[in-house]
Amino acid sequence: MASITNRRTITIEWGQCDAAGIVFYPRYFEMIDHSTAVLFQAVLGVNKKQLQERYKGDMPLVGVNGKFLGQLTFGDVIDIDSEIAEFRGASFDVRHRIIKDGKVCVEAQETRVWIGFDENGAMKSATIPDEFRQKFFN
Amino acid sequence: MASITNRRTITIEWGQCDAAGIVFYPRYFEMIDHSTAVLFQAVLGVNKKQLQERYKGDMPLVGVNGKFLGQLTFGDVIDIDSEIAEFRGASFDVRHRIIKDGKVCVEAQETRVWIGFDENGAMKSATIPDEFRQKFFN
Amino acid sequence: MASITNRRTITIEWGQCDAAGIVFYPRYFEMIDHSTAVLFQAVLGVNKKQLQERYKGDMPLVGVNGKFLGQLTFGDVIDIDSEIAEFRGASFDVRHRIIKDGKVCVEAQETRVWIGFDENGAMKSATIPDEFRQKFFN
Amino acid sequence: MASITNRRTITIEWGQCDAAGIVFYPRYFEMIDHSTAVLFQAVLGVNKKQLQERYKGDMPLVGVNGKFLGQLTFGDVIDIDSEIAEFRGASFDVRHRIIKDGKVCVEAQETRVWIGFDENGAMKSATIPDEFRQKFFN
Repeated sequence: MASITNRRTITIEWGQCDAAGIVFYPRYFEMIDHSTAVLFQAVLGVNKKQLQERYKGDMPLVGVNGKFLGQLTFGDVIDIDSEIAEFRGASFDVRHRIIKDGKVCVEAQETRVWIGFDENGAMKSATIPDEFRQKFFN
Repeated sequence: MASITNRRTITIEWGQCDAAGIVFYPRYFEMIDHSTAVLFQAVLGVNKKQLQERYKGDMPLVGVNGKFLGQLTFGDVIDIDSEIAEFRGASFDVRHRIIKDGKVCVEAQETRVWIGFDENGAMKSATIPDEFRQKFFN
Repeated sequence: MASITNRRTITIEWGQCDAAGIVFYPRYFEMIDHSTAVLFQAVLGVNKKQLQERYKGDMPLVGVNGKFLGQLTFGDVIDIDSEIAEFRGASFDVRHRIIKDGKVCVEAQETRVWIGFDENGAMKSATIPDEFRQKFFN
Repeated sequence: MASITNRRTITIEWGQCDAAGIVFYPRYFEMIDHSTAVLFQAVLGVNKKQLQERYKGDMPLVGVNGKFLGQLTFGDVIDIDSEIAEFRGASFDVRHRIIKDGKVCVEAQETRVWIGFDENGAMKSATIPDEFRQKFFN
């Protein structure tokens, strides 16, 4: 079984670059956070709010790491490839690669936990929905 | 009666500058939005969430304008002076000046409306609390 | 003669919204600054850096205003329509409208000045290139 | 020898929080990037631009990781403690802790490389200035 990869293509904006003319690194995490949302929407067909309602839970971030292998500047057209690296019991990893002209410029991985809501909206421990395990791999 | 002016002093950060080495203008509005929050906290003694609870309302932005008279770069130490320019029936203006070495580099004005909450949290038309009119001028 | 309008379509991201669940207003100016860049690239065929080289100048912002007529939240698909409102001798206005389902939610206008570079890269007063006047209207 | 720790204290802003009312995680990296700049300025007495000039080099980021142990919201007053974790030959780690009421809410580490400039401003391999090794530990 292979993990489903979602690709989105964007252009680096002037305002995402710093005084050295290259992308200010927190902007990469803005791109990556949205890429996770786009991946989940592509696979499950729901946005972040709908996901909370349908699956009675949410997936806060508990860790992230990034490696910056090549510099990008405004006007660069990049692909962001995102996929689930691993589902564990209650946590999972989302892997992202930012690619320009076939070269990986940023590698990043988010670790998120799945948290359930009870009837009153309070958080409780929960396991990742089986539907996720089925739909994110094919 | 004079409007109470609140001053806060900050240093321009590397990540607030663009590839030309000067502040990317949306960052000024980030500074200004926070300056309004700091002004209200200084005068009323409550933060944005506490203000909503105490006065049963909120003050969304409906308009803003800015004039950029001088460029700023990272490391610049600036003062932001904020004050109420005018309270009207249900709307009001907050005036901000960003100053470096005595020179005004940015002038901006926000127009906000006061919106009340009814018992169910729904929005309803409302007039600006009298307490605001008394406390913001001396 | 009518001004050429460029439309781009984007989806509001989770990270562009504030704790009230609506777009944090400085994010609109990030969108608008990039929309101006996209408009110029669509009409002139050059990005911001190439524009500086070809026309020996740049166009810093000196003023901006925005009106916020409707609230937007993450997942909203919006159109941003951008056009030159007016070219004057050395300054010009860019008008932007952010539209959802046919309703204008944000109106904004940037005022920019055209600044020339001399052979040493120093700034000097300059008039807007005639080519701009011809290409932005049809 | 102990690494010199620099502490700065800030208040979480409304605009740094997302629609869940907690800090949007890329904002932590904005805080951290600036904290590194503040650490270097506190120890070396120069800002980023002056550092480039004095030491004929720069220190681009090649990796970063973060652990999010506790959620923060607007109005929270936090300390950010920053220090050099290790100097190696040409790379080094900067460790950051974001602390509220004595509790560590975010741990992050940046890995940066030291890059020299030759007379023409081109980048060349270089070793970390000895002065850094002496001044950052006491």
